[in-house]
Amino acid sequence: MRAIDVIRKWMEDAGLRTWVDHMGNLHGRADGANANAEALLIGSHMDTVVDAGIFDGSLGIVSAISALKVMFINGKLQKLRRPVEVIAFSDEEGVRFQTTFLGSGAVAGIFPATTLGVSDKRDVTVESVLKENSIEVTEESFLQLKYDPKSVWGYVEVHIEQGPVLEQVGFPLGVVKGIAGQTRLKVTVRGSQGHAGTVPMSMRQDPMVAAAELILVMESLCKNPEKYLSYDYQCSDSTLKSLSSSLVCTVGEISTWPSASNVIPGQVTYTVDIRAIDDLGREAVIYDLSKRIYQICDKRSVSCIIEHKHDAGAVICASKLSSQLKSAASSALKRMEGDIEFEVPTLMSGAGHDAMAMSHLTKVGMLFVRCRGGISHSPQEHVVDNDVWAAGLATLSFLENMQ
Amino acid sequence: MRAIDVIRKWMEDAGLRTWVDHMGNLHGRADGANANAEALLIGSHMDTVVDAGIFDGSLGIVSAISALKVMFINGKLQKLRRPVEVIAFSDEEGVRFQTTFLGSGAVAGIFPATTLGVSDKRDVTVESVLKENSIEVTEESFLQLKYDPKSVWGYVEVHIEQGPVLEQVGFPLGVVKGIAGQTRLKVTVRGSQGHAGTVPMSMRQDPMVAAAELILVMESLCKNPEKYLSYDYQCSDSTLKSLSSSLVCTVGEISTWPSASNVIPGQVTYTVDIRAIDDLGREAVIYDLSKRIYQICDKRSVSCIIEHKHDAGAVICASKLSSQLKSAASSALKRMEGDIEFEVPTLMSGAGHDAMAMSHLTKVGMLFVRCRGGISHSPQEHVVDNDVWAAGLATLSFLENMQ
Repeated sequence: MRAIDVIRKWMEDAGLRTWVDHMGNLHGRADGANANAEALLIGSHMDTVVDAGIFDGSLGIVSAISALKVMFINGKLQKLRRPVEVIAFSDEEGVRFQTTFLGSGAVAGIFPATTLGVSDKRDVTVESVLKENSIEVTEESFLQLKYDPKSVWGYVEVHIEQGPVLEQVGFPLGVVKGIAGQTRLKVTVRGSQGHAGTVPMSMRQDPMVAAAELILVMESLCKNPEKYLSYDYQCSDSTLKSLSSSLVCTVGEISTWPSASNVIPGQVTYTVDIRAIDDLGREAVIYDLSKRIYQICDKRSVSCIIEHKHDAGAVICASKLSSQLKSAASSALKRMEGDIEFEVPTLMSGAGHDAMAMSHLTKVGMLFVRCRGGISHSPQEHVVDNDVWAAGLATLSFLENMQ
Repeated sequence: MRAIDVIRKWMEDAGLRTWVDHMGNLHGRADGANANAEALLIGSHMDTVVDAGIFDGSLGIVSAISALKVMFINGKLQKLRRPVEVIAFSDEEGVRFQTTFLGSGAVAGIFPATTLGVSDKRDVTVESVLKENSIEVTEESFLQLKYDPKSVWGYVEVHIEQGPVLEQVGFPLGVVKGIAGQTRLKVTVRGSQGHAGTVPMSMRQDPMVAAAELILVMESLCKNPEKYLSYDYQCSDSTLKSLSSSLVCTVGEISTWPSASNVIPGQVTYTVDIRAIDDLGREAVIYDLSKRIYQICDKRSVSCIIEHKHDAGAVICASKLSSQLKSAASSALKRMEGDIEFEVPTLMSGAGHDAMAMSHLTKVGMLFVRCRGGISHSPQEHVVDNDVWAAGLATLSFLENMQ
């Protein structure tokens, strides 16, 4: 609520008409020359997580407001070809209610009204939290938050990369070609529990060493999908190419049972997080990985269970928006540095963003801004100083050339 | 204390003179024909752990008493060539005080007097527990528990194998050639924490996949030590041969940090339990494994720390006792089954036993009895019925032929 007060003042200083909706999203709109034309929505989220740094979400809001303020000062705001509406989304992270995209999801209309009844750890519901903060919401007003797709032209979001690619290639900005689809697996390997001293190596059915082999084959497959998938599957060349550049696989959690240093575990459980921009490719990877998991478990006389805990399809950014964002980024960097030597890079987003929810409403485009240290959650500030400036200028250039 | 009451009655029924010492060990002694000759000590432990089954420890006590009772009934007890003393040790497992071999260790004199001050989770000391049970102990009387090595001829223990070897080879009894030495390592692998979606495979320094590779190389080394150690080290052929038949390596515990399914871990920690009958061989394995761990971590640009948490040397059983036990086992099996086709097998013990503590006092020998299911901790009863009978007969044969 404090962030709303601050950002609302910035929006008003930029000549925007503001309001807070029933989900706590803050909107700032300039109608431009054609108040009834399809509107460009542009924004990001106000909330963040511990140690994500000061730019997570806020950068997209601030760069949009800054660009519009320049246009306001220069008298261009009234001449905008179509309405531009900045939205500062209330809850993207899902920290409190374990539901991501609460703010943008309400605008995109992807949630049922029962979402208001979702509660936090202390059994406080979304609805009562909103009411505590003087935001009256009913099921009806919640459902009415959904924008009419016909009133919207597209959605654009600027966000810090939260990854190492732009830092690696040495470029401040990059165009996002899409947000990866994701599958989360839980793999359980069951073997024969035993005393670490009494069972000879040759007589073991050890789920821990089996899991180690499974994790290595996952890594190998995900590093070289073309090597594994080129024969057996009807993966097209473009799918294979897309996998080669976007597929990531991670084991983040692992545990043994009974978990004692002198006991050969009876069971090992671990998670697999698989993401790729190509949904068919991701499915082929999961099929191939599962097959190899069962083969290895068979060879080692242990049993394997693979559970699908979560599946989400990829979002592909609109090519038109992407090419406009690319031009905007180019012209921003030229404005700052004179000539630029390389083309603005294109990369995928492995993490979810409000654009993922907004893609259910309209076409989306995203611009990534370089991080320092290349990681998601660091107590330090992420973005190289000039890159913030580049983000604002690129947004301005995008708005100036908006069609 | 209830076990002491029961076993004491059995001992007295077998004509033994009994007493409980200051560590709660129950002794039953027959002086035989030469009360001042060096005594044969024979026994095992009264305590056990949850789900270890009814034979863990108790089998060694019961088979010794049973054999002596037969001799008592047949009038042979008084004619024993040397004193025989059955000891039912009070605490071998170390469940309550996290110190194994409390009973046998006191008799072997391997503990300092401060051991009486070791306390359990509720800060109750060994000394006060003994006192609660009417066993008065002082530092002086504790130290006096140590037997004079000159008064002792040797120590023999019958125990269930708690492993699968005898079941596999299809033999009810086996002679233990030694108790493996043990090293416990803690391996910490540190890499670069990151978002599971945003860091491309090629840019990762992922300690989880590194740990998987380390665990697999450990397995490979421990399955085929001769393949790994035959060049670089001054391992003798006998060491290599001994490793091939006795080396076991286990990862029982593993954890990631921060342990979230969508985060590439920053750190992975796991335990390694390495056992072998040949101490030099075990050291060579640890040296080689450590070298390979560092090489792999180097290749993967992660850092590795290897901590030695525990080291214990192997105990080699006395060959004279072993060959007498072998003859005794043979003759017992012949008595039961007529001719036996194969020689009584020799195997190593990967688990610790009271004989390990007693080896500090005198020469030791052990006889293993076949398990069903081949595992250490099972709620079912372990030993095939006839095998209990074989254990008792073998003990009787050993005592009848004792020199």
